[in-house]
Amino acid sequence: MKKISVVLMGCGGVGRQLLQHIVSFRSLHAKMGVHIRVIGVSDSKSLLVPVDVVKEELDDDLLSVVCRLKSAGSPLSTLGALGKGEYRVFSGSESRRETEAIAQLLGKSTGLVVVDCSASSETVEILMKAVDLGCCAVLANKKPLTSTLEHYDKLVLDPRRIRHESTVGAGLPVIASMNRIISSGDPVHSIVGSLSGTLGYVMSELEDGRPLSQVVRAAKTLGYTEPDPRDDLSGMDVARKGLILARLLGKRIIMDSIKIESLYPEEMRPGVMTVDDFLQNGIAKLDQSIEERVKRASSNGCVLRYVCVIEGSSVQVGIREVPKDSPLGRLRGSDNIVEIRSRCYKEQPLVIQGAGAGNDTTAAGCLADIIDMQDLFP
Amino acid sequence: MKKISVVLMGCGGVGRQLLQHIVSFRSLHAKMGVHIRVIGVSDSKSLLVPVDVVKEELDDDLLSVVCRLKSAGSPLSTLGALGKGEYRVFSGSESRRETEAIAQLLGKSTGLVVVDCSASSETVEILMKAVDLGCCAVLANKKPLTSTLEHYDKLVLDPRRIRHESTVGAGLPVIASMNRIISSGDPVHSIVGSLSGTLGYVMSELEDGRPLSQVVRAAKTLGYTEPDPRDDLSGMDVARKGLILARLLGKRIIMDSIKIESLYPEEMRPGVMTVDDFLQNGIAKLDQSIEERVKRASSNGCVLRYVCVIEGSSVQVGIREVPKDSPLGRLRGSDNIVEIRSRCYKEQPLVIQGAGAGNDTTAAGCLADIIDMQDLFP
Repeated sequence: MKKISVVLMGCGGVGRQLLQHIVSFRSLHAKMGVHIRVIGVSDSKSLLVPVDVVKEELDDDLLSVVCRLKSAGSPLSTLGALGKGEYRVFSGSESRRETEAIAQLLGKSTGLVVVDCSASSETVEILMKAVDLGCCAVLANKKPLTSTLEHYDKLVLDPRRIRHESTVGAGLPVIASMNRIISSGDPVHSIVGSLSGTLGYVMSELEDGRPLSQVVRAAKTLGYTEPDPRDDLSGMDVARKGLILARLLGKRIIMDSIKIESLYPEEMRPGVMTVDDFLQNGIAKLDQSIEERVKRASSNGCVLRYVCVIEGSSVQVGIREVPKDSPLGRLRGSDNIVEIRSRCYKEQPLVIQGAGAGNDTTAAGCLADIIDMQDLFP
Repeated sequence: MKKISVVLMGCGGVGRQLLQHIVSFRSLHAKMGVHIRVIGVSDSKSLLVPVDVVKEELDDDLLSVVCRLKSAGSPLSTLGALGKGEYRVFSGSESRRETEAIAQLLGKSTGLVVVDCSASSETVEILMKAVDLGCCAVLANKKPLTSTLEHYDKLVLDPRRIRHESTVGAGLPVIASMNRIISSGDPVHSIVGSLSGTLGYVMSELEDGRPLSQVVRAAKTLGYTEPDPRDDLSGMDVARKGLILARLLGKRIIMDSIKIESLYPEEMRPGVMTVDDFLQNGIAKLDQSIEERVKRASSNGCVLRYVCVIEGSSVQVGIREVPKDSPLGRLRGSDNIVEIRSRCYKEQPLVIQGAGAGNDTTAAGCLADIIDMQDLFP
């Protein structure tokens, strides 16, 4: 039985779902000859590890307790009080030092996967260190890969040891497919993607004639948006995904060189306007101009989509008119879609489409990444 | 630099294209730290190897000569006459013994990939032997995987060592995506696919009101069909793909348990009717009944598609009415499409769509498979 040791950073919706999947699919993975040994779970403040990371692991009962605790909103540090000495909880800078010590101990011997399911920009340092120590990395977190080129280069120094399917389109096999295309020598000419479930929903509702303000308020009520919907409407999340795809294609691009169209103007930005004020008064002022764009598109046989377009060395993110009867134009609701054109997919693109968000699918993408790295383990 | 040794069986359109890709993308693969060492190329009768398979490889010039020779229709055995003693050509049963000897020599030490780009049902024995000797296998050939369950089980005994993306949908990332879904514990509920470029073309032309006989004759003229178009119209090729997908899902199914709808009746089968007779006289007799089905579908808001449907333990292959505005219904021309429904892709399926045929894309799929196995090599 191959043992894959895992340290998980981030215990939010995705991280907890990943732990639950690991526990639920033990027998499936045993049939594949793989056992996932969870030897570390951390939230933003603390790290939980077994007493001896070489011989022991966090058992399934304890992982369930961790999931319940975190989903009730309690920090990992409160677990200490329940302790029976079978595990240890490190906090603050100790937690980071301990993660490094584990990476040092296991990275080159039995191997270790550091999984980043946080949404933090702080994890990049520990990830670089871990990769440098011979560990593998699996990321759902987009921030480390959209940091500076120097950080990026260090993270992907050995591309086989870093996987990040869930950074673009949740579990949709976008990154895996692009890696196949690249390694087969098929040059990618362009990528066009609708990569935000939230903005996908917004654009297809606008198409049906509803005003932007109403659609965004509904999306927030349905839980489709971030707590501040401007986090989605700014296009930053899509730009991060675009940057990740462009870098995968070998383009030396940084965030600042991406042209991003925000759906709200500067004067409505967070800090200037509260969320409530934006939703009550701000956004309605945008209804008319969006409605005009929807109508203009329609008169051209098109619909509006919020897309990321990668072509040559340019990455652009914003609203585009796309033909109503193209795969992008026919997209409904919160599904994501990616159209890749290359030598092999020239006249018609390679299209990958499906649910591109959600804790379950995002965690599934991380788990598939972990299992797919099994050949790197002894 | 990782060295991946390869023996190629089959030197038709796909095999030759694969050799050309290997040669063309040497510098790309070098950047990835990989060198593909071609140490054997065989056609149905002969095997070409370097004098010392451990130290030498077939050099790129020789591979180009092989491609030119085979595309001019000459057998590999004629290469002997040009020989300068830098390589050896084995024929008949010797050729098979030599392949086995190479597998024995390299399988467990440096590793070896046996690539099957033939269309033969005869390669299954050598593939099983090679896998048993610790070699990897990459298949574009569907026949070994659609043989008996006993053969299948032996081939996939170590699933990491056998890849066969190009057996379904050419280079489309169908198998890779399914493997990810399976390993993440996401249970697949159903798969519906249009998996024949030829039948895809035929069905979308029928939709436009053209008679079947005319469409099939045109498809043959355009080179879209096999020399005997009944090889496509029988549905056997689609059934093989369906069987491969079903077995990947763990279903214990054999060819005989697949319900296959042929587009022509028994009395027009090869052996009873010549190809010419079928095209001149036979097929026109089918025009009316197909036309009626097209019209009936249309009155239901549907179009006809020739699909493979996997659901529960059943695999069915044949014409189905599908809604005009579903991904399958909107498919045009020879693109393939696969819709996968699972826990994660429940309300809307995961859709993979694009060119599912052609030597270039099929060879690209094989090459990506080879590169993706690099972690198994020292």
